[in-house]
Amino acid sequence: MPQLSQKGLMMPQSPIRKLVPYAEAAEARGITIHQLNIGQPDIKTPQTALDAVKKADIEVLSYSHSAGFLSYREKLAAYYGKQGIAIEPSDIIISTGGSEALMFAMGSVTDPGDEIIIPEPFYANYNGFATASGVTVKPVISSFESGFALPPISEFEKQITSKTKAIIICNPGNPTGYLYSKEELDQLSELVKKHDLFLIADEVYREFAYDGLQHNSVLNQREIDEHTIMIDSVSKRFSMCGARIGCIVSRNKELMATAMKFAQARLSPPTLAQIASEAALDTPQSYFDEVISEYVDRRDTLVAGLEAIPGVRVAKPKGAFYCIAELPVKNSDDFAQWLLESFEHNKKTIMVAPAAGFYSTPGEGLNQVRIAYVLKKEDLIEAVALLKGALSLYKD
Amino acid sequence: MPQLSQKGLMMPQSPIRKLVPYAEAAEARGITIHQLNIGQPDIKTPQTALDAVKKADIEVLSYSHSAGFLSYREKLAAYYGKQGIAIEPSDIIISTGGSEALMFAMGSVTDPGDEIIIPEPFYANYNGFATASGVTVKPVISSFESGFALPPISEFEKQITSKTKAIIICNPGNPTGYLYSKEELDQLSELVKKHDLFLIADEVYREFAYDGLQHNSVLNQREIDEHTIMIDSVSKRFSMCGARIGCIVSRNKELMATAMKFAQARLSPPTLAQIASEAALDTPQSYFDEVISEYVDRRDTLVAGLEAIPGVRVAKPKGAFYCIAELPVKNSDDFAQWLLESFEHNKKTIMVAPAAGFYSTPGEGLNQVRIAYVLKKEDLIEAVALLKGALSLYKD
Repeated sequence: MPQLSQKGLMMPQSPIRKLVPYAEAAEARGITIHQLNIGQPDIKTPQTALDAVKKADIEVLSYSHSAGFLSYREKLAAYYGKQGIAIEPSDIIISTGGSEALMFAMGSVTDPGDEIIIPEPFYANYNGFATASGVTVKPVISSFESGFALPPISEFEKQITSKTKAIIICNPGNPTGYLYSKEELDQLSELVKKHDLFLIADEVYREFAYDGLQHNSVLNQREIDEHTIMIDSVSKRFSMCGARIGCIVSRNKELMATAMKFAQARLSPPTLAQIASEAALDTPQSYFDEVISEYVDRRDTLVAGLEAIPGVRVAKPKGAFYCIAELPVKNSDDFAQWLLESFEHNKKTIMVAPAAGFYSTPGEGLNQVRIAYVLKKEDLIEAVALLKGALSLYKD
Repeated sequence: MPQLSQKGLMMPQSPIRKLVPYAEAAEARGITIHQLNIGQPDIKTPQTALDAVKKADIEVLSYSHSAGFLSYREKLAAYYGKQGIAIEPSDIIISTGGSEALMFAMGSVTDPGDEIIIPEPFYANYNGFATASGVTVKPVISSFESGFALPPISEFEKQITSKTKAIIICNPGNPTGYLYSKEELDQLSELVKKHDLFLIADEVYREFAYDGLQHNSVLNQREIDEHTIMIDSVSKRFSMCGARIGCIVSRNKELMATAMKFAQARLSPPTLAQIASEAALDTPQSYFDEVISEYVDRRDTLVAGLEAIPGVRVAKPKGAFYCIAELPVKNSDDFAQWLLESFEHNKKTIMVAPAAGFYSTPGEGLNQVRIAYVLKKEDLIEAVALLKGALSLYKD
């Protein structure tokens, strides 16, 4: 048979992919699995978004503009304005999910052989997009002890070469839940200015900032307007993961003209989902207030429960809906598999994401797992009890 | 400012992109433009597809499986079965438009520096996807005189090097309207087998085969199962361009496992549009019969009208809804611009796609245009009259 591509062979798989057959087998044995491993919220999608699609009067489901509906970009610009981010509709290209926005950004700033620097642990698919683009990820490790704060700038500088094109951050972080401070963004601004790099910020969890903390957008680092690229998405904000609507935002006109060429090649983002996403912007603040208070409650429940388990430590998240926990195990990959293969209590078990998959440095995060708190409080309580029971039985 | 990527700078723009400002200026002067330049059908989307979305009972608009709904893939496999193509649901990955399916195919079979061979003229965005992947397109010219039949296999063999990974065909062809015969597919099969290449067939216009001719799918070349990749889309079939739903189909399990890694990195195809696309498969045959008879009528009207203009020749299309016409002009780019900038009759003009943009060999197709017959018959008649009047006035 003809040869497949090297990059196809190198494309990484999701950190939980190898667990899926074990989960399916457990379900086949009649076991209920609490899924702490995925970021699919159970929160209801705003009715206004769903209604807009039902009410849409469509005769021909046609292409939209390659940059997305102008009406949507205008409303989105106004929405960012309300958040204190001054953006023109022409600074926005609507994409098919945050994923495509990242692909546009990577395609516009990197060529095969180039390098990007990412603090780790990081969203595993950054690796996939980098591999697909023939780009090498240079990780800079952030520490569990600091709650995954920004690593020292000197550590970034050690990784910068003539091939470095950009730094990617996720703020608030998946999988860490860390929220970067204004001071940390200032440090990064100075760095990218000094070395003439792009700073790509994945801000899809922007609204999920807790404890009265303020989210700082990279777009408000006005001294580096030509360097900043913001990635956004409706997936988590409005619990609309299946819409596949995101956007790339930058005030760098040349960058946006280049990204637009990638956007034109794929014609347009999905029309039905744009209708839903545009309407979602009318969602009242009360929706977010409820959602945020729900997540804070879940986080507090989860973290308190985890910290009460002997040998378990948690880096308390300030945002998003993930946390990294250290477990008293040698290899959380093996443990996660054991949870599905060999453990059950009252016909129930849990599924967690082994954290090694969020590091690109081999051997890092082996005793860590990522836990998503996208389940109802009572399920989280039960999940924590299951974890406690499992750890008391598990032998490395 | 930081440097953009080489590939971003090299990304080609659509052949009609540079005409857009002239079209906008003409519209601002109150001129009506018959758009013969784009493949956005005016045909109504099947009501069953639109109703399915309205009726869907959604609480959380969640991700689908990365390969798309299993229920949709099952129905799609049955649909192909009815067309005489034996396919399993596991041979299908649902993509975000045919565009993404092509990106998955290209990513799975090529690395930067590799080459693909495409008979030209070809769909201009193949160039965009190749550039985005760092891949070089080696064109093999097909002739206007033959109606854009498959070029001699010896011409393909001249272009094959150690870097050649695949041949891409579009069947029926955009922009040519050519429909490959079984004999031509047999020749290609022998070629890809001999040189161990992939054969990627873009069959998004499959249903649009006229004059009683049968469409031959590459998937029915069973002797090259490991080589064939079929690209499909609901865009044209159901006049659902804005759905952004397509698929990649292959019986090569390793290829599909690799494509799946690209699919997983972007999480899932759009959920709402999958609901519409699955329901669209219930569209009665009468819908297609009407659509096909409408297109045949339009084609016959257009071709007869064009051939009655002195100096105009047409390669009569056997499928899709495009044709390439030769005009008595030196440079159709200039002529297309002149039509928008300097011509009008009763406040009306036409917009055509200069064909040079569909060739990758410089200097080819300069006196050709692509005309899409996606307008109503009376508009096509008027458009042809406008073209005739314009050509009588135009001076190179």
